[in-house]
Amino acid sequence: MSDAPFLFDRLCVIGCGLIGSSILRAARERGLARTLVAADLSPRVVARVGELGIADVVTAEFVQAVAEADCVILCVPSGAFGAVTEIIAPHLKAGAIISDTGSVKGAVVAQMAPVLPAEVHFIPAHPVAGTEHSGPDAGFAELFDNRWCIVTPAEDIDSQALARYRAFWEGLGSKVECMSPDHHDLVLAVTSHVPHLIAYNIVGTAGDLEAVTQSEVIKFSASGFRDFTRIAASDPTMWRDIFLNNKKAVLEVLGRFSEDLAYLQRAIRWGEGDKLFDLFTRTRAVRRSIIDQGQDTAAPDFGRPHGKG
Amino acid sequence: MSDAPFLFDRLCVIGCGLIGSSILRAARERGLARTLVAADLSPRVVARVGELGIADVVTAEFVQAVAEADCVILCVPSGAFGAVTEIIAPHLKAGAIISDTGSVKGAVVAQMAPVLPAEVHFIPAHPVAGTEHSGPDAGFAELFDNRWCIVTPAEDIDSQALARYRAFWEGLGSKVECMSPDHHDLVLAVTSHVPHLIAYNIVGTAGDLEAVTQSEVIKFSASGFRDFTRIAASDPTMWRDIFLNNKKAVLEVLGRFSEDLAYLQRAIRWGEGDKLFDLFTRTRAVRRSIIDQGQDTAAPDFGRPHGKG
Repeated sequence: MSDAPFLFDRLCVIGCGLIGSSILRAARERGLARTLVAADLSPRVVARVGELGIADVVTAEFVQAVAEADCVILCVPSGAFGAVTEIIAPHLKAGAIISDTGSVKGAVVAQMAPVLPAEVHFIPAHPVAGTEHSGPDAGFAELFDNRWCIVTPAEDIDSQALARYRAFWEGLGSKVECMSPDHHDLVLAVTSHVPHLIAYNIVGTAGDLEAVTQSEVIKFSASGFRDFTRIAASDPTMWRDIFLNNKKAVLEVLGRFSEDLAYLQRAIRWGEGDKLFDLFTRTRAVRRSIIDQGQDTAAPDFGRPHGKG
Repeated sequence: MSDAPFLFDRLCVIGCGLIGSSILRAARERGLARTLVAADLSPRVVARVGELGIADVVTAEFVQAVAEADCVILCVPSGAFGAVTEIIAPHLKAGAIISDTGSVKGAVVAQMAPVLPAEVHFIPAHPVAGTEHSGPDAGFAELFDNRWCIVTPAEDIDSQALARYRAFWEGLGSKVECMSPDHHDLVLAVTSHVPHLIAYNIVGTAGDLEAVTQSEVIKFSASGFRDFTRIAASDPTMWRDIFLNNKKAVLEVLGRFSEDLAYLQRAIRWGEGDKLFDLFTRTRAVRRSIIDQGQDTAAPDFGRPHGKG
């Protein structure tokens, strides 16, 4: 910890899964809050967070958890934002920052904003980071390093509160970008939600083929399929809720995806190699940009570390 | 190198890209052939393979390269199998094993088998291994370790020749499986070809959205999209040829994929969360099997090594 003054005197994280527990770990390691309060509905998670020692106070009582906190972050499943907000809203400290880490922003704003008192600063946030694992043991302090955190406050947000919350996420290691909830939901539909859906889908399709055994699918997965299975191993509850909550943008992007796929399918049927080659060349350039901008490494990951694997 | 007798006295690899150069490196490191002959049409590649020192003889002359070789492996683009086979066929040594490493087996067999003399042993092979990089510098000796190599010989193949060629691939580090060319092409359509096509497709769809900038797509790619861009960075020529050569199986699997996706799309539109949840749970089990069978690691790769990235 540094001697610099803390950004928050009392930080409360509600929901201690992968994201919540990573926030607690990073906030402590980097000295961002004097007192860390962790809350979770599950007695099992409360007990485990206590064992891990990643918070100063661990409780299942949300009302007690938020009292006196000058920043409260909801890291709960997206179906629970409304209910949790109703419980804590009357007990929030005036002037506190209240935020969340939901993957869909329009739906979170619709659930939380009407319930919150006027004297708190509501700054929805989405850290674009994660792994395919879940739970308090899956978190780690470096999860947000060099990743983006998108914040989607209302236009009349208090500028000092916004600056402080940006500084908090920068302190956690993130780069911060500000946009409207609707635009966030469209961007994430493209970069995350639809890719997950098609990964889930191809893994399902492969499992249903009568002529190819499950054992063959698994044996020969190194040829591309296994990357999809990794994505398709993400938390089923979380992803169900994402699709239901971001219906409009997901259906819009999915419509375009299917149109584009039909175009490729037709090119294959009619032997139009140029159409395929043009696309495959264009997509290679996108990859180069992602590596150039530090969002991935150029290491030949298909080969993966060898040995025990 | 060990003191054991060599499996082959003279091994000739035609085409020294990622796969060909990896075979040369592994064969030398593990002492599988007394003399290694490397051939490539490109003077640039011939020069580079010479510099790398991964073969005893390096030449652009295919006829000279195959003379006296007791095993010849074609690692050329799939469009070139027929032409290269026609050049070398009259000069193959009687009793030699001739093979390839093409990703589609039906089309390779159709191009090569009619041209080959009766006195050679034709054993088509497909090492299910690779990275998203190309060229002689991209190869490495460990590429085939713990990966599958599928061989698809005719039913009347000489059993001693088959046993020797299996031993060769096992010597390179692979596990070997034998099946018919058609079955191979269907299995690979599921585990490799269609996954690549949909990865290419989503990267293209993302690039065409008017409301989302390319820069946003790249910034927020860590949320799932970047895994697709890695796949969609694979060699455009090779993949165009794969789709054109495996048309029947790819269109079959693609038809099922689109049907299944329409089912999910409808579930999202009508808010049928159970249908999504059921699939997402089933796909998680497939992932576990892949890890259990050593085809990938459980390391939380979404987080990727942090730092410079």
